[in-house]
Order: sequence, then structure tokens, then C-alpha cells
Amino acid sequence: MDYKAYMMQKGLLAKEASRRMANVTTEVKNKALLNIAKAIRENTNIIISENAKDIENGTNKGLSKAILDRLLLDEKRIEAMASAVDQVAGLNDPIGEVIEGFKTYNELKISKIRVPLGVVGIIYEARPNVTIDATALCIKSGNSCILRGGSEAINSNIVISEIISKAATESGLPNGAVTFVDITDREIVDIMLKFNQCIDVLIPRGGANLIRKVVENATVPVIETGVGNCHVFVDESADVKKAIEIIVNAKTHRPGVCNAIETILIHKNIAENILGELKKELEGKKVQLRGCEETRALIECEEATEEDWATEYLDLILAVKVVSDIDDALEHIYKYGTKHSEAIITESYTNSQRFLKEVDAAAVYVNASTRFTDGGEFGFGAEIGISTQKLHARGPMGLKELTSYKYLIYGDGQIRK
Amino acid sequence: MDYKAYMMQKGLLAKEASRRMANVTTEVKNKALLNIAKAIRENTNIIISENAKDIENGTNKGLSKAILDRLLLDEKRIEAMASAVDQVAGLNDPIGEVIEGFKTYNELKISKIRVPLGVVGIIYEARPNVTIDATALCIKSGNSCILRGGSEAINSNIVISEIISKAATESGLPNGAVTFVDITDREIVDIMLKFNQCIDVLIPRGGANLIRKVVENATVPVIETGVGNCHVFVDESADVKKAIEIIVNAKTHRPGVCNAIETILIHKNIAENILGELKKELEGKKVQLRGCEETRALIECEEATEEDWATEYLDLILAVKVVSDIDDALEHIYKYGTKHSEAIITESYTNSQRFLKEVDAAAVYVNASTRFTDGGEFGFGAEIGISTQKLHARGPMGLKELTSYKYLIYGDGQIRK
Repeated sequence: MDYKAYMMQKGLLAKEASRRMANVTTEVKNKALLNIAKAIRENTNIIISENAKDIENGTNKGLSKAILDRLLLDEKRIEAMASAVDQVAGLNDPIGEVIEGFKTYNELKISKIRVPLGVVGIIYEARPNVTIDATALCIKSGNSCILRGGSEAINSNIVISEIISKAATESGLPNGAVTFVDITDREIVDIMLKFNQCIDVLIPRGGANLIRKVVENATVPVIETGVGNCHVFVDESADVKKAIEIIVNAKTHRPGVCNAIETILIHKNIAENILGELKKELEGKKVQLRGCEETRALIECEEATEEDWATEYLDLILAVKVVSDIDDALEHIYKYGTKHSEAIITESYTNSQRFLKEVDAAAVYVNASTRFTDGGEFGFGAEIGISTQKLHARGPMGLKELTSYKYLIYGDGQIRK
Repeated sequence: MDYKAYMMQKGLLAKEASRRMANVTTEVKNKALLNIAKAIRENTNIIISENAKDIENGTNKGLSKAILDRLLLDEKRIEAMASAVDQVAGLNDPIGEVIEGFKTYNELKISKIRVPLGVVGIIYEARPNVTIDATALCIKSGNSCILRGGSEAINSNIVISEIISKAATESGLPNGAVTFVDITDREIVDIMLKFNQCIDVLIPRGGANLIRKVVENATVPVIETGVGNCHVFVDESADVKKAIEIIVNAKTHRPGVCNAIETILIHKNIAENILGELKKELEGKKVQLRGCEETRALIECEEATEEDWATEYLDLILAVKVVSDIDDALEHIYKYGTKHSEAIITESYTNSQRFLKEVDAAAVYVNASTRFTDGGEFGFGAEIGISTQKLHARGPMGLKELTSYKYLIYGDGQIRK
């Protein structure tokens, strides 16, 4: 099969659709979303039976339990996906918003208004729910999307994308607005990475290898998502109870996600007070600790090496380091952090302000769990990913982060002198 | 020489400086800018004598008159450069601005605040003034910059960058905040393009070849600037006098820049009324016309080919096409436009609104010259370039467009349920 020709045909259709999508009315977009949610619900059994094929293939291939769990769709999860689409329908339409407006010295009236990005390419792995989530956000923000999911979920993705596409076009969205790539050969990804002619932005969603591959090889602009080597720093003046609750939450609430913490930094003057109780609480949640020398002088645990400070475990493992002061903590975070989410637990006003000011990360917390770095928790209504870059969007990305803008200039014959 | 080691040393210095630059006070940044402007003025003679070497080398190499003119620095131009730096000192500091703030369902207080991008890499060609302009904007926006100018201007750039660096560090800015690469070997550019470790964003400024090279090869995020195949559409109801003034201005005011127009589209019902007078005015300004068949039935001119519609002349040449209606004009712009600046001349309310809505470009004009797509004209006070992409920034880029943001989250022990 000629993959280039296949992608060119899909790409041109998506691009042509994006031109119309930019001006589809809010009413039509919302109707399409509600119809998609309805169609998902009505086809629950078909989705489950196609998903069963993926689960069977995955089991035969020996995929890990964690991946099989991500793959699995049941009635409850399908209802949750449909309900997420309903929610997107209820969000404000970002397109057409006047972001700012001003008048120039020569009486030109300029409005900066929000417009879609165009064609958004999403490259993802084993989560079939991305097919629906990403589609819903792209529709609402007036973008076309080209979705390329992983081979593990291909049967689920094909049936879901067919249901979506049918409901979308029947609701009046242009053909091609939701474009699913039903070939899982990696060559397709290589083509997408350099498909500047038809894709305006690429959002990779998945593991570190996928993201690195996209960032290193794409000529299409990329929004990098995902990697989070996050820290909690327990300052000298911390409320110990809050500190323990926050650390346990940030480590164990969902250890496999990017906003979970991987290392804690503890002020030397509070270490003895907190480490015993903390160890008990964490070990009760099956967390394995790896400590620096000072830590190991206070509690029993494995030794942390240089590699541990740099590792995103995504697992029930936590590195522990005793630091001499806030400067020491800031240095450690600067050296090993990935600019995702960082927290200080402190009662000191001055140190809270310093931490907020000096830590360079998408989300910087005082006395709260890093697990809140999330579009839903921030109140964005939905999320297409968490950006770990500084260009365009940083942190949780909702509808607004899927938009660009243009300047409208109202003149009266002005020419430049 | 080991270019990689050379760049690594420069890059790490710039990166370390960017960490401090993020929190340099507005007062120190402004003092540094005023001192830089002063030092530029005081060293006018040295700059002129170093510039003379570039002009001599360029003349010997047979550079075009246009490039030699861009290279040339005289007292007036140096004063203009210094004065531009003074102006940047007078602009509001964008860093620390609270872009928005909100409270979540669980009483987290979140502020989204403006922060610098980090290290901005500028790759440019023969204009030594970019060395100063870009530096001033990066300093004010709290970024470090790594500047790599073209070989044609190397003597001018070296002396200017030395003057800037000295004034900057003497004013309290960290060493490395303004980093100039004094090697013009192209291998340096190749290293910069993939220098993700130390550069947060690359802004290429120069001709189409440079920009293409950067976009196609960089792994560092890029803001694409420059190419503009801009149009004026003269609608049926246009005020003929305004139309002629705007076309003449947009074509001839400065034909070598990206916001100059390259093709005009004229409604068939007004073509006869306007073409004779327009030809006279344009030819009076030495503009060569290239027309479609219908144009050539009305006025004498060369024939426009398919290639003309796609060409950014950057010269005193203008393609002319008669179109049947606004749909025809919109199709032509969709097909050949580069999403930079597009204008309609019309007295029709409905058509003005359609054009503003349906044209996908950074700047869409009604009854004004496209030459206003410019940071200075928009009132941004200064400009680092005009983005022709949709990600991050679109159109004229001033100080704000050199920033990112971070979320500060004020908690009280919140954990995620």
C-alpha cells in the first residue's frame, strides 16, 4: 500500500474540512457533540465486543496488566466517555472570542480574535478513550483532527471513530473534520511528523519514547506533553500532618501519571520529626523508599543513587533526600526537575513566595498536592494533555490551548506614511 | 576548533543566566537598556569603522546593492538603533503580569502569571540592527538570548555585541544573558537547531531559504517568520480613490518587506473603472504589472502565469487578476496566500464581514494598507518579527510574544480525592 498517497488523501480532506470548521456555528458543533455522545451510548455493545478483540490480542501478545487495564472498555468507562463529550458540549465556545481590542494612533480599529489552529494531529498509544476525548475538544475548538492511535487499541479505535464520524457528518460537520488513520504501521507516524502541508500542530500522547521520537523528528510544530519528575519540598516550618497527607496523596493517588511525585526533599531540621511517620504511612500504601545517606541515618530504606534523582518512576517508589535549606531544595529541583509540577510545604510566608517565584515549572504549589495539575481540576472542563514546554501552552491544555488568533483591522482608507 | 564544545559553553552560560534573568527587577532591566543605548551612542565611531570593514568585504564579494544597504550603518541609523533601545526601556515590563486568576471548587487559588521563555535563539542574516533590537526585547522580557548573525555583518555584530554585553553586565545583568556567537560557520547553525538542552525557542529572521532550513531541521521549537504573499481584493463596491491609494502604498511603500502586496484581485464589475488610473499611478512608481487575460483585455501589461500567483516578488512587480466575485477572491487567497496579511477594499458591510471571517491570515484588513502589519504600527512599541505560524504567536511579535506563563497554586493542605 502507498502510505504517502493514503495520508495525502486523508490530510487534504482534513485540511479542507478545517477551513469550514473554523466557521461552523456553536449550535452545530454542540449538536454534533451531543449526537456523538448519544451514538457512543447506543453502540456500547459493539464497542465492547470490538474492544474484546484488542484485549484478547493484547493478552496473547503478553502486554502488561497496566496496559491491558488502559485498553479495557466496559459499560462504565464507555458511559464516562460519552458523558465527557456531553460536558464538552456544555463548555463555552472559545472561537470568535475577542481576546483584546484597541485603536491605533491613526484610527485603525484592531480586534484580536480567537480562531482554531486548523488541523490538529494526535499521535497516541493504548488508550482508546483518547479517540473520543481528543475529537470532542477539537470539534468544540473548531479544529479538524487527524488521529493515529496505537496498534494495541486498533479494533476499539476503528469502531469508535466510525461511530464518531457518522454522527459528526450527520450533524452537519464537514466530512474529514474527524479523520482517523486506520493503519498502525509506524511509517504513518513518520509521514505525519513531516506533514506540514496538512497538519498545523502535533500533540503526542503517550510514553517518553513516543514523545521523544515526535519532538526529535517532527517538522510540524509540536506541543510536548507528559514527562513529570515532580517534587515535594518539606520546609523547616511545614505543618507535618499536611506534609504527610500531601506526600501520600501525590505519590499514591495515581502513581502512573505525570503529576505524581517521584522525589521528596526534606529540610534537615524537620527530617527527624517527619520521616518515621511518613515511612509508616507510605509503606502502608506499599511505597518503596530510596533515601540519601542522611535519610538512611534516620529510617531504614534502600539507598538512592544519582540515577534515582533523575528518574520518573511512575510507580510506587519514592526517592527521599534531606536538604540543608530552601536553596538546596531549589538547586535540586533546578537540576533534576522537568518543569512540570513542584510543591513546597511551608508555613513561612517568605519561603512560599521564594518558591513560587524561583521554581520554573508549569504549576508551582504551596501546601497542596501536585495531583491537581489537570485540566478538569483546574476547571477547564476537559483536557487534551499537559504541556511541558513553554511555547504556546504550558500545563493543562483545554479548549483555549487548541486555538490561535488573528487580527481584524477596520480601516477607513489608511495608508502607511 | 570544536564547535560543539564552543556552543555548549555558550549555551550553558546563557541557560544559567536565563534562570537569573527571570527574576531580575524591572528597574535593573531598564537601567541596563538605557546604559546599552548610551554605550551605543558613545561608540558610534567605532561601530562605523567596524561596519566599514563589512561594507568593504561585501563590496569585494559583489553583494547586491540592496544587501549592502541593509548592512550599512551610519550616524543616523546608529542613533535610531539607540533610540529604539530607549523606547523598549519605556515599555511596560510584561513579566509577572497576572494574566488570569481563579479559585477552584476545592478552594485552591490559582494565578496564571507571565514568565520569560528562557533562552531565545535568534538566527539572522545581514542586518546588524537585529543584534540590538533582539537583545533589547529579550532583556526586557527577561529572556537570555543567543544571537547568531550572518557572516556579511560579522565585524559590525562583534563590536555591537561587545558594547552591549559590557553595558549589560555593568548594569547588573547576569553574564551570558546576551550571548553572541562570533563564529559564522554554518555548522554553528546546525548545532543551534538541535540544541534543545540550552535553547527554548528559535526565531529565524531572514530570507525564505534560511527560514525553510530552520523549520525543516530544528528540533528546538521554532517561531516561523516572514514569508508574505499578500493580496488586496478590490470589491465591486470599492471606493476607487481609496483602492488606488491603498494598492500603491501596499506595493511601493517598501516593496522588499513581507507585508507588501504581491497580487491584486479586482472584481470584474469595477475592473474597467479602476485599471487605467491604477496602471498610471503604479507605473509612475516604476511598478511592473503582470495581468491575467481579462486584465490584459483592459490594460497593456505582461502576462501573469500560474507561477506569478504563487510568487512573493519583494520587488516592484505586481500581479493583477480579475475575479468574478468575492467567492472567487476568497478561493484565490486560500490557494495562494501565505496567511500573512490580506485586505479587502469595499463599501459593502456584508462582504467586509465575510472577508474578515473567512480569510485565514494573521492580519485581515478592511479598507487599509497591509503595510500596517508591524509591531510598531500596532502599538506594541517594538517587534522581534512577524509570525506566520499559528502556534504560540501570530502576526507582529512584541514583548508579550516572548513570554510563557506558569500557574501559581495557593493551597491549604488540599489533596486530590
